[in-house]
Amino acid sequence: MVKVVEVGLRDGLQNEKSVLSTHQKLTLIHKLIAAGIKEIEVTSFVHPTWVPQLADADQLASQLPKNRDVNYRALVPNQRGLERALQTSIHEYAVFMSASESHNQKNINKSIAETFPVLQEVIEKAQMHGKKVRGYVSTVFGCPYEGEVSIKQVITICERLIEMGVYEISLGDTIGVATPNQVKQVLKECLRALPSDQLAVHFHDTRGTGLVNAYVALECGITTVDSSFGGLGGCPYAPGASGNLATEDLVYMLHGMGIDTGVDLEALCQTSRWLEEQLGKKLPSKVLQSYSK
Amino acid sequence: MVKVVEVGLRDGLQNEKSVLSTHQKLTLIHKLIAAGIKEIEVTSFVHPTWVPQLADADQLASQLPKNRDVNYRALVPNQRGLERALQTSIHEYAVFMSASESHNQKNINKSIAETFPVLQEVIEKAQMHGKKVRGYVSTVFGCPYEGEVSIKQVITICERLIEMGVYEISLGDTIGVATPNQVKQVLKECLRALPSDQLAVHFHDTRGTGLVNAYVALECGITTVDSSFGGLGGCPYAPGASGNLATEDLVYMLHGMGIDTGVDLEALCQTSRWLEEQLGKKLPSKVLQSYSK
Repeated sequence: MVKVVEVGLRDGLQNEKSVLSTHQKLTLIHKLIAAGIKEIEVTSFVHPTWVPQLADADQLASQLPKNRDVNYRALVPNQRGLERALQTSIHEYAVFMSASESHNQKNINKSIAETFPVLQEVIEKAQMHGKKVRGYVSTVFGCPYEGEVSIKQVITICERLIEMGVYEISLGDTIGVATPNQVKQVLKECLRALPSDQLAVHFHDTRGTGLVNAYVALECGITTVDSSFGGLGGCPYAPGASGNLATEDLVYMLHGMGIDTGVDLEALCQTSRWLEEQLGKKLPSKVLQSYSK
Repeated sequence: MVKVVEVGLRDGLQNEKSVLSTHQKLTLIHKLIAAGIKEIEVTSFVHPTWVPQLADADQLASQLPKNRDVNYRALVPNQRGLERALQTSIHEYAVFMSASESHNQKNINKSIAETFPVLQEVIEKAQMHGKKVRGYVSTVFGCPYEGEVSIKQVITICERLIEMGVYEISLGDTIGVATPNQVKQVLKECLRALPSDQLAVHFHDTRGTGLVNAYVALECGITTVDSSFGGLGGCPYAPGASGNLATEDLVYMLHGMGIDTGVDLEALCQTSRWLEEQLGKKLPSKVLQSYSK
């Protein structure tokens, strides 16, 4: 069994210019649940002016379909976001930071050292309210500003986040540069510091290596993989470039390997087709493109 | 070192409606050679009415740039094709058949049993003229008509082709359905019958698994991989579906793994960009899509 964490509503949609209505997002969530998706990151409680697509976070999070089998997740960047999140029924929060100093600075306007206390406060208060907190670490496999990122630095950040109370860390290939041997090397070293059930992987398919990297991660013992319906995501800095690893492609591979995901691939393809109509554009998932119904 | 066999001019172009001129193809070949590609399947000597895109086979093959480092290859389906090929300076021929009875029947209008004598004649005569012959086996990982294909049948065909004088067999996932464990299983069994230097792999990326399957093949000891510039290929039966594994994506992964290919990735991307302009369409390679120059 592999746990597929669907991040399309947040990491995918946040890069889309055409803003979906809250009603459209709720329809999408209903369809995803009907397709067997159980882990859904639905939005982010960042400041609404940062990401207009996610400006309806409060409204969306308060109207989520009630379903005991589904785990709703949301990004919570800081104390203000946390207060908003706590008004909703979201089950699980995620904090985020980068493994490289320049990306962290550009993305959250703080140094790595300055970021920890902010996240610590969020994690502690979230836990006081009985919420689990995931940690995203970005640019693990390469930084758009610094290039190579030190594995030692990645591990130091992971250990610190776990000490602070995060239950799981998602290692992100934010710009989609990772290749298999590198993934093996990084995971091997991370797994010396942390058990496999505290690690997830988050690959982007910018250079076509998303799926092979996920395969290598599974071989290393990782069982939680982030992905996005239709491969939604894109990169604002590279027009035409693909985004997150596509959930359809991941699920096709896993099922072909006899690994259960609980996902109904046909229903998922129909969901992404529906989304293509809403967005007025084709999505990059290869399985979706080959799906002819 | 991995040997990348560039099949875009034949397996890629044959699915393209917009027919390139012989001059355009020669320009493309010049550019590929400048990008470090050394194994190029340039055309097929099938009957011109079958594949209008390759109707200029004789003309193209007689004007190829002279370069001692480059190995030109062409498909030769039968005696008539062989006679045409022998009028040219093509170094290496390839015969082809399917691992599944129905695909073989639909593709070459003969049963598998009826196909062997035809290929045998081609191979013998080619060898008399000092030519090496490759064998393509299609539908190894799944047949569009029969579904699953027996590994035993695949091995029987491979052994027979080798006995007949073929120096290498390219195992084809013609419809792009293969997944990693299956690839491992098929190759493991094939490698019990044949040494790794007699086997190549030929994956299509229809469902996004092309690159991960190539990775698994490398792990199994295969060192010859077919691919197509830009991921050119498509499938006439599934509009929008991707074609061959993209050479750019393969090379990006291999270089990231520290494996030499002799290919200049930037020059290859520029070549595929040039081809996009000629064809008036975008090509599916992810590396190409993310290449911004």
